[in-house]
Amino acid sequence: MEVDKENFSEWYNEIVEKAGLVDKRYSIKGMHVWLPYGWNLMRNIDNYFREIFSQYGHSEVNFPLLIPETEFRKEAEHIRGFENEVYWVTKGGGDELDVKMVLRPTSETAMYPMFSLWIRTHADLPLKIFQIVDIFRYETKQTRTFIRMRQVHFFEAHTAHETYEDAENQIKEDIEIWKKIADKLALPYRIVKKTDWDKFPGAVYSIGAETVMPSGRSLQIATFHQYGQKFSKPYGIEYLKEDGTHDYVHQTTFGMSERLIGAIIGIHGDDRGLILPPEIAPIQVVIVPIIGEDKEKILDEARKIKDELKDFRVHLDHRDNYTPGYKFYDWELKGVPLRVEIGPRDLKKNQVVLVRRDTGKKFSVPRDKLHERVMDMLERIQRDMTEKARNEMEGRIKYTDDLEEIKNNTGVFGVHWCGNDECGHKIENITEKRIIGISLEEESLGKCVVCGKSTNKIAYVTRPY
Amino acid sequence: MEVDKENFSEWYNEIVEKAGLVDKRYSIKGMHVWLPYGWNLMRNIDNYFREIFSQYGHSEVNFPLLIPETEFRKEAEHIRGFENEVYWVTKGGGDELDVKMVLRPTSETAMYPMFSLWIRTHADLPLKIFQIVDIFRYETKQTRTFIRMRQVHFFEAHTAHETYEDAENQIKEDIEIWKKIADKLALPYRIVKKTDWDKFPGAVYSIGAETVMPSGRSLQIATFHQYGQKFSKPYGIEYLKEDGTHDYVHQTTFGMSERLIGAIIGIHGDDRGLILPPEIAPIQVVIVPIIGEDKEKILDEARKIKDELKDFRVHLDHRDNYTPGYKFYDWELKGVPLRVEIGPRDLKKNQVVLVRRDTGKKFSVPRDKLHERVMDMLERIQRDMTEKARNEMEGRIKYTDDLEEIKNNTGVFGVHWCGNDECGHKIENITEKRIIGISLEEESLGKCVVCGKSTNKIAYVTRPY
Repeated sequence: MEVDKENFSEWYNEIVEKAGLVDKRYSIKGMHVWLPYGWNLMRNIDNYFREIFSQYGHSEVNFPLLIPETEFRKEAEHIRGFENEVYWVTKGGGDELDVKMVLRPTSETAMYPMFSLWIRTHADLPLKIFQIVDIFRYETKQTRTFIRMRQVHFFEAHTAHETYEDAENQIKEDIEIWKKIADKLALPYRIVKKTDWDKFPGAVYSIGAETVMPSGRSLQIATFHQYGQKFSKPYGIEYLKEDGTHDYVHQTTFGMSERLIGAIIGIHGDDRGLILPPEIAPIQVVIVPIIGEDKEKILDEARKIKDELKDFRVHLDHRDNYTPGYKFYDWELKGVPLRVEIGPRDLKKNQVVLVRRDTGKKFSVPRDKLHERVMDMLERIQRDMTEKARNEMEGRIKYTDDLEEIKNNTGVFGVHWCGNDECGHKIENITEKRIIGISLEEESLGKCVVCGKSTNKIAYVTRPY
Repeated sequence: MEVDKENFSEWYNEIVEKAGLVDKRYSIKGMHVWLPYGWNLMRNIDNYFREIFSQYGHSEVNFPLLIPETEFRKEAEHIRGFENEVYWVTKGGGDELDVKMVLRPTSETAMYPMFSLWIRTHADLPLKIFQIVDIFRYETKQTRTFIRMRQVHFFEAHTAHETYEDAENQIKEDIEIWKKIADKLALPYRIVKKTDWDKFPGAVYSIGAETVMPSGRSLQIATFHQYGQKFSKPYGIEYLKEDGTHDYVHQTTFGMSERLIGAIIGIHGDDRGLILPPEIAPIQVVIVPIIGEDKEKILDEARKIKDELKDFRVHLDHRDNYTPGYKFYDWELKGVPLRVEIGPRDLKKNQVVLVRRDTGKKFSVPRDKLHERVMDMLERIQRDMTEKARNEMEGRIKYTDDLEEIKNNTGVFGVHWCGNDECGHKIENITEKRIIGISLEEESLGKCVVCGKSTNKIAYVTRPY
């Protein structure tokens, strides 16, 4: 890497360029080509989504990409929120289409007309489905790989319930699921309730999982929305209650995207490149043979090691035309969590050398303890990365009651806010930053930074991505 | 099922409606919602694609959906072939786009500009990649679920090679891969070379894997294209040869789609519903407890059985409010290959009953032989389904030299054709059917049905889907 992480934005661009996750040179800005290594990483994350959501009783579906304008326009707030950023399909072959269609910016308006066909009685509830698809947004702001894209790899869970309380419980369950996902990705976060002027178009309220990048700016990496009956009414999603009357369902959604990869890169990477959490790394262990005189003997041993480690995602780098030093550099750039070196000296001493990507530390390990030690080490790396990231994030959050300090510094600032809209807008105007939400995890007694009214609510103020 | 398979087209529509694979009621014709059961089936097939193609040295990538008009128009034959069936994105938000974009109808024109960046020297070759994505075609003909859709779940492999011969060998390898896929899906097929007027737009030549549906019409379920340098020249995909000169690469593609599911439904299904090949069935074994007096005892035993069969994709149907008879009907409709029944009588006799979906035959199996017998039975079902489908397909292919017979009958007809275009067009005009290609597997000496010239080539003539 040529740029160090102090210059976060340039460092981020360089690492994305070099690590072989995606190729940004596609001819449409904000749409990239996923290369095998990056797609492998994304698919590992997707497959964990599948595993955990199916454990919680969700089923995977797949809806069409295109939504007719007539369906898209049914919920007024929703359409106003997206009108300026959807792509329109207006022609098929040489024909102007009678009904224009949007590329889904999210799938509420594709799914909910079907919900109204699927849901008849309380026995059909709760309905819990998810899909993993691409969504499309005509971004006019500057795009940034994984973080602000025009084609976005997206996860969306949609649920329907009998009562508002059931939907509330679903959101609690979603946050429980999210915790497990964040653990897999070794990502720290804070859970916040979004301000009314920043919630999802059409939602009763929105919750975000927010992380903090080394630049001191926040990044929203998961969202949870309570829709109440705001969509079920315009889309006519009614059910027969046990008492024989009818009511509209209550709905929630849970969304995540390729932004998670942006967060992993930014939070864990260093001046040598990516550092990937073992749980989702496409390659967990790379074996680099240090070829001396005994080339064939070393290679044989390396192949044996590969075979012994086949429970892990292991790769043997037997490229002939590269030095071990080049290979070290290459796999460090790509963030492989653990390296196994095997050379003539190791062969003699009946040992191998393990090198951790996160700390750079080397360990000689007796040959017959290899499998066990690799297992331990991968677990430890996962734990240490999580811990380190959490500490770093905490260090980027400061508490203050001085709005000028917020204005003149980078980072995330916790301030007391009474929750009143007027005070909120003042906070944003004075600091020239945004309230990313009110903490749902921390409270402390204090006075609203604007009106001085006593409150225990803490809002986070920063420049979000 | 209300319609029997004799009325193939109606039967097909009914089975699609009832089996819970997709929901056709989405508001855009030719685009369906994949329901959990259908999506699970599709994903099993996709995952086998991933497994087999990675064994053969292909890497998975993922390209953007949208292709700018400027890139799309570079290869003239290709664009003429697709011009009338692409969807155009012309607006983003309220803005008319400067450069219109198409939804990919296939990805040559998205990928090949990137190939020209990726490929520098012979060391970069062969390049072997694939992706699994949706493609879009503005069909004006009548759509048919899985078979003729406007949004199509698609597999496409693209390769680049040093020489034309290398590309030829790739196609041979592709056909070898295809054989394995066809085995997994228990699908019979014939390999044919397409006529010049029916080849893929921009290809040197095209090969198809064609199966025959019970209606007697052929269905193309895989395609293999030799592109030679027809794309590499307009897209500037050049490489440095070992001798220091430059040349354009030679390319191939291999495509498949959700049509495979259409073929599985049509070829294997019967009057009771789907019959899915065990290798890719979402549920391989369903356990139906026959509840008598000893409800809890039977359910316990059923749970034990489920646990013992956990190597398989097994489902225990413990729904309270349905009779065993209803459950039998339901899982037969959904095509689960093997049913395990366990009731009070079986419990006493220390046995279970296995029922094959394909033959309907019942077997009593000693309780302690269950796992072994299930394994055997699934293998046998796969084998028998393949065999039966092959025999049925052979029965639908007739050989004749009477073009009037072809005109007046359904089915696939093998005729001798000299290969001359003029004779070929006459065959199509007189029979009012299409030549789906010349067999690459069978030959016999005879005379061209039109000009009488002696030839050993056999063309298949039929009404293709």
